Amino acid sequence: MRYGFGVDLGGTTVKIAYFDENGTMLAKWEIPTVTEHNGKQILPDIAASIRQFIEQKMIDSADIIGVGIGVPGPVNGKGVVNKCINLGWGVFNIAEELSALVGFPVKAGNDANVAALGEYWKGGGKGCENMVFVTLGTGVGGGIVVEGRLLHGTHGSGAEIGHVVLNRNEEEPCNCGKRGCVEQYCSATGIVRLAKRALAASQEDSPLRRCGIITAKDIFDWGKEGDPLAMQILDQYYDCMGEFLGDVCSIVDPEAVVLGGGVSKAGQMLLDGIRPYFDKYVFHAASGARFALASLGNDAGAYGAFKLALDAFGG
Amino acid sequence: MRYGFGVDLGGTTVKIAYFDENGTMLAKWEIPTVTEHNGKQILPDIAASIRQFIEQKMIDSADIIGVGIGVPGPVNGKGVVNKCINLGWGVFNIAEELSALVGFPVKAGNDANVAALGEYWKGGGKGCENMVFVTLGTGVGGGIVVEGRLLHGTHGSGAEIGHVVLNRNEEEPCNCGKRGCVEQYCSATGIVRLAKRALAASQEDSPLRRCGIITAKDIFDWGKEGDPLAMQILDQYYDCMGEFLGDVCSIVDPEAVVLGGGVSKAGQMLLDGIRPYFDKYVFHAASGARFALASLGNDAGAYGAFKLALDAFGG
Repeated sequence: MRYGFGVDLGGTTVKIAYFDENGTMLAKWEIPTVTEHNGKQILPDIAASIRQFIEQKMIDSADIIGVGIGVPGPVNGKGVVNKCINLGWGVFNIAEELSALVGFPVKAGNDANVAALGEYWKGGGKGCENMVFVTLGTGVGGGIVVEGRLLHGTHGSGAEIGHVVLNRNEEEPCNCGKRGCVEQYCSATGIVRLAKRALAASQEDSPLRRCGIITAKDIFDWGKEGDPLAMQILDQYYDCMGEFLGDVCSIVDPEAVVLGGGVSKAGQMLLDGIRPYFDKYVFHAASGARFALASLGNDAGAYGAFKLALDAFGG
Repeated sequence: MRYGFGVDLGGTTVKIAYFDENGTMLAKWEIPTVTEHNGKQILPDIAASIRQFIEQKMIDSADIIGVGIGVPGPVNGKGVVNKCINLGWGVFNIAEELSALVGFPVKAGNDANVAALGEYWKGGGKGCENMVFVTLGTGVGGGIVVEGRLLHGTHGSGAEIGHVVLNRNEEEPCNCGKRGCVEQYCSATGIVRLAKRALAASQEDSPLRRCGIITAKDIFDWGKEGDPLAMQILDQYYDCMGEFLGDVCSIVDPEAVVLGGGVSKAGQMLLDGIRPYFDKYVFHAASGARFALASLGNDAGAYGAFKLALDAFGG
């Protein structure tokens, strides 16, 4: 049996996990992400933590396949990071640098793409060859797996599906600077925005008016209770999600669409709500895609990162 | 040197070409597509034509790598055709059937996808690893190449980019049955539709009013001459194309977008017109994609079909 590491590099902590080649997670731990001095300590810290683990556990380095890492920014198929603003990083080959430090081969990818690979391998997309993964959190991120391989993109920004344009006439700007992006409607903050607009546009009473700070969860909870205004907001949300996922599937034609992130906690209700709109918007030949919920939670990135290394170096 | 065949199967003719392994086209010819009796004669005709060529030219079968074929309908990565309405075909494995008839290994793909692979290999996308190909003809078709491999899709309908939704509020139906598809605005017939709407909505004089039957070429020609109404229609067209290509590139992040089909005869004017709108709509990290014109014309399908076989069986 051979082994390897999956690293999920975030803005505040680094999650590191140790796997056997079947994908069983044997250990996991976290270290802080030290972003001072343009994040120059991050890779040495990761390398030192992995080396220390290997020594403590008396692991034979010859049994290590390699290290995979997911990074919060664009990374192309060759391992070149194209700026991670959160970490203070510029443009460099992270795979080569971390490999020189840790002494094992390294493969790198964007964090959302790598999480997609994790869900494809061991989570909600298990058994698929082609899969689209969507995270519905503060923003909307995603990853695309084509015949078992990640779509990294030429500039490392493959599957930036949160920035597909849904509404050319939107007046408020998205965080990315454009107007009318998917993220402005489909993220956890997007659905709250839809709710605020709906509340402002009507006089209708609704328990949502008494929520103080409205959250995505409030809208789903009151929608489930049958509140007409919450149901109307959800309907609009499902319509946006249906067009968004329909467009992505007309392009990618996947076997499954896997939804993760905070909004996906709404569960089956979310999948059932989106489906009829999806069927309306998707090209008929691609309408067979099944919907599933992500199942690995915060571990998706570590699983996917190790899988990247396994595919590249596992032989 | 080894050799092989690329077959571009259309609704009225089958184009067959003979290549060496470097991709030099050594011969090409056509046979009619016999669609009677649910197209059951099509594959035997192709096989017989290839066998006859081999005998006449006294080619050693041991030197043949295989046969690639592009089909006017959905074909998945395993060679399963999922109905070709034009040909009367149902669901079956075309790669296996044609291989049994012709005596060489066969690899199959959708015609637009296969043409994309041709342009990627020897045409407007030469030198790219990731490419999006778009045909702007009667409809809008396309193909996506990811790190040198075609995105076939689970149901064989990968890259049906003409059926991404551009306008949820469209009232007229698309040929696919949906409403508001890219094809309704960006195809050769789509731009004529935009023109008719613009002419109906205004009283302004324009040479387009004296065209009789307006064509895409008329609109580009009069736009180039400075006719204000034609320029306004082109502006709207470029806006639609910019959103469309921006959305596709936010998802795929290619190195190049290659435009083919009738509308692409407008040439550099078309690329220059789309660019500022593309830059407005695309996610910034993917904005580096270059635009190019297709250069293989009607031979793109044969080149791409042979390339499919070469990648699969060329060793």
